[in-house]
This record gives sequence, C-alpha cells and structure tokens, in this order.
Amino acid sequence: MDAAPAATEDVRRRNTAAVLRLLRDSGPASRADLARLSGLAKATVGTIVGHLQQLGAVAEATASPAAGRGRPSTPVELDGRSHAGLGIEVNVDYVAVTALDLAGRELWFEERPRTSATMPVEQVVALAREQLDRARGQGLAPLGLTVAVPGLIDRAAGRVVQAPNLGWDDVPLAALLTDALGDDPGSAEVAVSVDNDANCAVRAESLRGVAAGTRDLVYLTGTVGLGAGILAEGRVLRGSRGLAGEVGHLRVGTTQPCACGREGCWEALAGQRALVAASGLEVDPGEDPVGYARRLAGLPDAETLLRPVTEAMERGVAALVLGLDPSVVVLGGAFVPLGDVLVPALERSLARGFTGPGVRVALSSLGLHAASVGAALDALDDVYAGRRSLPAR
Amino acid sequence: MDAAPAATEDVRRRNTAAVLRLLRDSGPASRADLARLSGLAKATVGTIVGHLQQLGAVAEATASPAAGRGRPSTPVELDGRSHAGLGIEVNVDYVAVTALDLAGRELWFEERPRTSATMPVEQVVALAREQLDRARGQGLAPLGLTVAVPGLIDRAAGRVVQAPNLGWDDVPLAALLTDALGDDPGSAEVAVSVDNDANCAVRAESLRGVAAGTRDLVYLTGTVGLGAGILAEGRVLRGSRGLAGEVGHLRVGTTQPCACGREGCWEALAGQRALVAASGLEVDPGEDPVGYARRLAGLPDAETLLRPVTEAMERGVAALVLGLDPSVVVLGGAFVPLGDVLVPALERSLARGFTGPGVRVALSSLGLHAASVGAALDALDDVYAGRRSLPAR
Repeated sequence: MDAAPAATEDVRRRNTAAVLRLLRDSGPASRADLARLSGLAKATVGTIVGHLQQLGAVAEATASPAAGRGRPSTPVELDGRSHAGLGIEVNVDYVAVTALDLAGRELWFEERPRTSATMPVEQVVALAREQLDRARGQGLAPLGLTVAVPGLIDRAAGRVVQAPNLGWDDVPLAALLTDALGDDPGSAEVAVSVDNDANCAVRAESLRGVAAGTRDLVYLTGTVGLGAGILAEGRVLRGSRGLAGEVGHLRVGTTQPCACGREGCWEALAGQRALVAASGLEVDPGEDPVGYARRLAGLPDAETLLRPVTEAMERGVAALVLGLDPSVVVLGGAFVPLGDVLVPALERSLARGFTGPGVRVALSSLGLHAASVGAALDALDDVYAGRRSLPAR
Repeated sequence: MDAAPAATEDVRRRNTAAVLRLLRDSGPASRADLARLSGLAKATVGTIVGHLQQLGAVAEATASPAAGRGRPSTPVELDGRSHAGLGIEVNVDYVAVTALDLAGRELWFEERPRTSATMPVEQVVALAREQLDRARGQGLAPLGLTVAVPGLIDRAAGRVVQAPNLGWDDVPLAALLTDALGDDPGSAEVAVSVDNDANCAVRAESLRGVAAGTRDLVYLTGTVGLGAGILAEGRVLRGSRGLAGEVGHLRVGTTQPCACGREGCWEALAGQRALVAASGLEVDPGEDPVGYARRLAGLPDAETLLRPVTEAMERGVAALVLGLDPSVVVLGGAFVPLGDVLVPALERSLARGFTGPGVRVALSSLGLHAASVGAALDALDDVYAGRRSLPAR
C-alpha cells in the first residue's frame, strides 16, 4: 500500500465532509471545537475551513460570549447562500421542485400541474435547466439534482426501469439529463440522480411534519397504485436491487384480480381501482387520486363502503409493522383524505396485533412537498458523505 | 462548547476504533498507511499503535517486500492472542458457546445439550464464568459477552422480555450476569449484552456459509415457533423497539388458531404444531424440532403432507421479500431438513411473484454455530464502534 495522490484527495474530501456534517448537525462552532469533535488536527481543520470559506460554504458567525471561560473563539457556520441541492418530483398530476441550501433549509418550492397525458423527458430537461439557471441567478452553485419518480428505479444506473403512470419504460433519465445539461456552463459539476418517489418522501417525513425526528418510519402512499418508503435507523432501506418497499403486490387478499395478473395484491384491494369498486363513485375526467379520495370521504356511508379497503390496509400495514417495527406509519397521497376512516381502524388493528400498541399511525402533512424535499436532500448527500467535492460558485 | 476531558477521551477512543477497523478490514498495514487511510495525523497514529501494542492487541507483522518503492515500512497487524469476544446461545435443546479473537477468527466452539426442562439463569451464569476463566487462562482479555436468546429482547435494558420456550418472563439477564460476575477479578470490564437469537444468527450467516458476503439478507428460523433476523446493508435491522423480524404472527392464513389467540399466524401454519398437524407424526419424547423435521422429511409423501406448510411459507417469504428486497433468504433450524421440499417451492413462487427471480433461497449450513458466532461478533462491536476502550490483559 503506497501513498497515492488519489487516496490523499479521498482523505481530504472525507475530512471536509466530517467538518461539514458537524456544522450542519451541531450548528456554529469554532475551529478548535471542530478539531476536538472531529478528531482532526487543528491545522487540518484550519485548512479545511479556509477552503470552505473561499468557496463561500462557511462564514464567520457572531461569536457567542462563552461565559468568559478560555480565550474567545470565532465560530464559523454554514452559509446558506453558497450552494443548493435541487429536487424535482415528476408525478402523475403535477411536477414539484424544491431547492435546499447546504444546511437543508428550503430556498424555494414550486408546484405546477402537468399539462400532458404522458410526461416527455424533454419537459423534465427544460424544468431542470430552468431551475439550475434560477439557482445560478441567485449566486448559488447547484450541487446536485435528484429526480423523484413513481416507479421502479435502478439507482446505480440512474435509470427508470418502469413508471407505468408516466408512460416511461426503461428510460436512462440521469444520462439523458446529464447529456442535455452538459452544454450549459457549470452543469458538468451537477450530479444527476434518480430515485423512487416514496423513498424520497420518507426522508422528508422524518425531517418535517407529523413524523419529524423519527428514525424508523414507514411511509405509505396511495395513488393509482400503492408503494412504501422505509426508513430504518434514519437511512432509506433500499434492499439488494433497490426494490425494498415495493409492496403494492404484497398479497393481502385472495381472489381479487390485480392489473399485474395476480390475485389479492394490496393495490388491487386499496389502490384507486379498489376505491372505485368500493364506492361506485365514478372518476371525474382529469381528477387525480387525491381529489377522488376526497370526494369519496365526503359520502355519508364512507366508512361502510371503505370496509374492504380498510381490511386490506390492516393486513398490509400489519405485515410491514411485524417485519420492520417502525415507530410511525405515515399515510400519504390518496390515503390522506381517507384518514378519518383509516387511522382509527389501523390503530385499533395494530393494538390488537402481536406487537401491541406503540406504533403510531399518522397522516402526512407535507402534501406535494414530500418527494421533492427528499430528492433535494438526496442531492446534498454526496458532499456530506465525502463522495464529492464542493464545487466553486 | 469548551474542550472537555470527556470529549478528548471520546475522540481518542473513536480514533483507536478507526485504526482497529482498518486493521480488521484491510489486514496488516504500516503506520504511514494507517495515517493515510484514516486521515489521522501520523503522530496520532503512532501514539494509538503504541498503545495497542502495549495492550497486546497489535503486533509487528512481517514486512512484505513492497516492490522496492519508497523506504521500507513496518506493518502492524491484529494479534489474535490478546482479546476475545464471547457469544453464548441459550436455546431450547442446547447451549452453544463461541469465542472469537479481535479479528473475528474463531478461538473455540462448544455445544452442550440442555439437561433441564427450563433453563435456570444460574446455569447461564456458571457457563459464562467458566468461559471467561477459560479465556483468561489462555491470556486473553474478554471484551464482552453477548447472550443470544430465542425471545423478545429489550436490548437497551439487557432484558429478556419474553422467552416462552425457556420459561423466562421479564428476566433482567444482563444485570443478573453483570452482578454475578462482578466479584470475579477483571470481570467488571466485561460488557454483557443480550440479543435475539435470529438477530445474532443473521450476522453469522452474512459472514460464513451459504450467504457469506451478503449485505441484504433474511434469515428465517423454524423451531417451536418462527422468527426472522434481517440484515439491511450489512446491519441488523432492529426497528424502533427491537421487534423487527418478529414475524411469527404475521397473518398468512385465515382461520387456523394460533397459541397467541389470533388466527392464521405464520407460525400456526409453519411452526412445529403445524408440522405435527400436517404429518400426523407424533413428537418423540425429548425430540427437538430439527430432529422431528428430519423424520418428517423422510416420509415418502412428505411433499404432499407439507403442502399447507409450504403455502404458508410462500406467503410469508413473499411479504418479507417485497418489503425488504434481500438477495438471499436463508432457512435455518427445523426448515433445514425440509429443504428439499421448501427451497424449490419458494424459488418457484418468488420467480412468479412481482419482483421476479433474483432472490436466492438457501439452507443454513452453520447448524448450531450461527447464533453464538453472531453473539460473539456483537461482543466485539463496542470496541470497533469506539464506544468502549480495549481493556488491558
């Protein structure tokens, strides 16, 4: 093992990431504190902080009068005006964008209804370009761009394997975006990723809203289909092929036919088709699953009509709770308007179950925010994990 | 934030752990390599290595002739003769012990049949004392002792909440062991932990045997009941209350009564009672579930008799695979003798399922080793995570 320049660069990036994480998680700190907390030499911390100052990523903070002990220290803090992580959620009925600063604070959020039946990739490219320009126009260096998609994702390849509701089949989205943005000045440094929308949403749910601060969390979203995002000890559970949480075809019933050709799938019993079958209410032209669920919830006999849906939810949620032992199950999407029926039923059923009470069932309060916030957090990950250097502004 | 001695000690322990992890994971390395790979200052590494040498934990290794480049470096390596991690599995029919050295290499393994119907805690204490003495007799400093128990465990409290098959109900096992061993010279430094047997076994399965090197893994063991240990990205998935993998009462059937008072539980359909119901074969006096399953597997019409058991396994395994996306499902305990029937049936069923082929089903080859090896690994964790200092021999 000989010292190689590549390894030195690795170490520098990792040490920088350690300093950035401390500033993000513990707030302003002096160089001495950073050295003590990171275990790095003071000189090393000094060099790193100097470099981060040059990049605009950290700034001198106002020194707090530290009770008069020891010599005064000059704390530094993350500067929110330097870099941004961008998250775009492409969904069936809308597109949402969130930009976060280096500390994870929201810079802006935008939501637009989708105008076409399918989603041409060109629209995603145009939106990405516009958002990158917006960041640069504000003097922010974009660190990364993550696109959240409702479908099966090959994250390593940046590929959407299947997103039936977008009409996408085997789309190399990250490569298409990287190529298309490649000509824009500075965009070569923007890392493009693709992730599943529920995986993004569960991160956002653990950060804000009803499950903020939770580290073991299941987020369950109902749209046309049904999917879960799972957080275990604060990390998104992905599985060996990135398919963890694809529970729409978990068998919770017996004979009900599913669009996948099998029978008794969870989404055949609790997805939009099941809601339509249960209520007899027709879907209005252009109506999204959330709007439909809202109308259904308004029916006087909603609870009775939803009985088969509720039972399917009870069985599916019980399976996830027994396997994963989350502290909270968050219901999102079309399940939110049905919360008055679903939440008490699920809580009763979980309390009767083997693991007893102790798992909370809650409704997402993030609305259209969830997936794009999680995607923007994902866009910041590489820098905080030391896999990528901070680019200059 | 003022520099406090406690924090300095923290940093020293963390840095020592980083050096130990490098030596464990990458093998012998020079001090210069360790400094480069850890990002620590060379002087810091020198101090740490010196301290580890004093403790006997590392020794000078034979320098490899490094192709003549640069000045010769003296590599150091973990010394297997200094410290041990002890794992004890207490099960229904046997007690097993594994001792691992600091590098995770096996020092010894022992298995003894259990002699009494219930397992008095005093027997565990006596066994622990004997094993600690054995380690000290060989000049090894015991780092920790973890006891693997088939039951619900409160790990933070070191408490066995419930282990019906041992006749244990709310036993503060870690505290009882710590108190009982407290009078022995040196035992105050032995950290005692308790863990679920399947959680221990899944770590061993990822290290050796049919699933070695796997990082996303479900281990499913059948005894009187049924339980799972789950590994996600190489870490044991525990859940918010330590109950992750307690899938014995996952509902995979409809009306079959379970000992828990509910109906259709997985273990009511695939645990020992279900095997007896399916085969009509009586349990011999003193026969363990594995022996019983072996006799059942020898029946000429075993496959037909096991049809309801196989179907329950298909549904339960499908739920775990959809939720967790493991690369391998390892069957242990009483499922091993039934492997000729179960493995092909499960593989066919998974291939027909939503996530398709790509998940391997394998039979555990570790036998009685699995849980005690995992427990011994657990006993080494605190030092490698920097939560505990290496004690002197």
